[in-house]
Amino acid sequence: MKILITGGSGFLGARLARTLLAQGQLSLAGEPAKRIESVMLADRAPPPDDLGRDPRVKFVGGDLNEQIASRSIPAAGTDVVFHLAAAVSGECEADFDLGMRSNFDATRALLDGCRALGSKPAFVFASSLAVFGNLPGQPLPEPIRDMTLPTPQSSYGIQKFIGEQLVADYARKRFVRGRSVRLMTVSVRPGKPNGAASSFLSGMIREPLAGQKAACPVAPETSVALSSPARTIEGIIRAAQATEAEWGPLTGVNLPSLRTTVGEMAAALEKVAGKAATELLDWTPDPAIVRLVKTWPGDVMFERARGLGLQADLDFESVVRDYIRENPGAVKLPVHQ
Amino acid sequence: MKILITGGSGFLGARLARTLLAQGQLSLAGEPAKRIESVMLADRAPPPDDLGRDPRVKFVGGDLNEQIASRSIPAAGTDVVFHLAAAVSGECEADFDLGMRSNFDATRALLDGCRALGSKPAFVFASSLAVFGNLPGQPLPEPIRDMTLPTPQSSYGIQKFIGEQLVADYARKRFVRGRSVRLMTVSVRPGKPNGAASSFLSGMIREPLAGQKAACPVAPETSVALSSPARTIEGIIRAAQATEAEWGPLTGVNLPSLRTTVGEMAAALEKVAGKAATELLDWTPDPAIVRLVKTWPGDVMFERARGLGLQADLDFESVVRDYIRENPGAVKLPVHQ
Repeated sequence: MKILITGGSGFLGARLARTLLAQGQLSLAGEPAKRIESVMLADRAPPPDDLGRDPRVKFVGGDLNEQIASRSIPAAGTDVVFHLAAAVSGECEADFDLGMRSNFDATRALLDGCRALGSKPAFVFASSLAVFGNLPGQPLPEPIRDMTLPTPQSSYGIQKFIGEQLVADYARKRFVRGRSVRLMTVSVRPGKPNGAASSFLSGMIREPLAGQKAACPVAPETSVALSSPARTIEGIIRAAQATEAEWGPLTGVNLPSLRTTVGEMAAALEKVAGKAATELLDWTPDPAIVRLVKTWPGDVMFERARGLGLQADLDFESVVRDYIRENPGAVKLPVHQ
Repeated sequence: MKILITGGSGFLGARLARTLLAQGQLSLAGEPAKRIESVMLADRAPPPDDLGRDPRVKFVGGDLNEQIASRSIPAAGTDVVFHLAAAVSGECEADFDLGMRSNFDATRALLDGCRALGSKPAFVFASSLAVFGNLPGQPLPEPIRDMTLPTPQSSYGIQKFIGEQLVADYARKRFVRGRSVRLMTVSVRPGKPNGAASSFLSGMIREPLAGQKAACPVAPETSVALSSPARTIEGIIRAAQATEAEWGPLTGVNLPSLRTTVGEMAAALEKVAGKAATELLDWTPDPAIVRLVKTWPGDVMFERARGLGLQADLDFESVVRDYIRENPGAVKLPVHQ
């Protein structure tokens, strides 16, 4: 079993690689599980040290479009591609051409590369909650279901939704075995803020736990649909494993999400690390972020994911405690048990 | 007022050009009407003679992607683009790359060309009923509404739906004033059969009236959503004229359609031209066409188009009689009044 992960050095890509390497084998589309021989990580940045040391890990550096154009990826014999690489929402809104190149052109080229292999690899495409957005002057249809019409209100969302269409047609044509999963907002992400408009939804937990100030640029009553890193990776792997019959239509599948509010997230933080943590939150609104986040749904149903056996996080306090357990070095404040 | 029509020598493009030239002026997005100075027709084939003789008509020949790449189109000062050029459904299903190049790459390049003009031209995109398709093993949601989730079951439909997404985002970014209209199956088209899977829906009327045999490759009870050439052109022009507020969301708008069946179409033909006409119909099923046509909806609501003042044809017999009146030279059988 040869695996390719684009964006493989990023937080989700590296976590996916670690999970796959730890289980040592993978079953694709209901076939018998096979031993994982290699995991190719394609990314601009080199992988974290622990992955770099694993003899099964290979790394291809540089620009994704160039990697594909030079046929470095996908390598012959690739059984499954997890296509996670993307420019994030804030970047795509600021630089339209960058977004089209990173999110659209790369996805198409990678699908064409898979098609050229002739071996019909599995292709798991990381789409996004951001395909949904409320039409100007109208509320979002809530709850959002798997079959709700996406009307993206950001270039990032449009590019992801176009990616879903491409994956569906390349799969219908039997060029790949395509699976589009819509990732919810992942929180708590470790590490540094990124250019995503949703970045603060991790920063507002991560930074205070590290004893640093953090922005909460939207109102506390703002609804959000979150997924912990662990639940997100579960969903991505399940997409590759499901049989065609289990998977169903080639349209995008909403991954499970916990429905909460930014205010409830702050309350969970306070329960875990006290007022010392929540006093570090700066609630000054940022109109640009308010505008984007308001177009994202807070209430997202996931009937298809549930049918695949996937579940949402039970509560946000557990998610915060998971973050603390997984990232002990990043936590400076005392934690209440 | 400078107008560009891609696919401008084709049946719909030429009819659109004639209609615009005859009215002599056009109002865009609710602005005061302006005199039409020029109509540029971009196409592989030269325009029909009557258009070629009009001093306001200009012609750019050759491949659309090359015309755009060489900046022949869109010309500086273009006020409105009617983007009708496309590879048809049968071609796209047979040659995936041709479809992507003709329907996707050309649309994107044309939008980028319009954006480079910096003048925010109006951009009317001819999308299609074929964006709708039933998921394998499931019936189509009927009736189809403007906001029904399209799940295209052909590469042509996917490419058109992706085009709608691009138009919506280029419009949201204020690069163009975008309008996507979903054309219904146009019948009766004059001239020759084309590679569209729906081609028989004109041929089964046109050919018998000319005294020739014609294929009816689907069952008589097959539902279809039709629009006459006249109603189709009305819808395309109305899209350019509507104000932003009249138009509403940037999602695709279903043009009006007459709901009928292939059997009722044959009955209308018989009423107009007798058994001499319907005896020329060959009802041998063609499984490939049956498969494609079955995925298209027969019952398509058009609330938004109705709100714009557009109406469907009243009955198919009138459509057949309009065809005969407009194409007297193509009719060989005697017609009952």
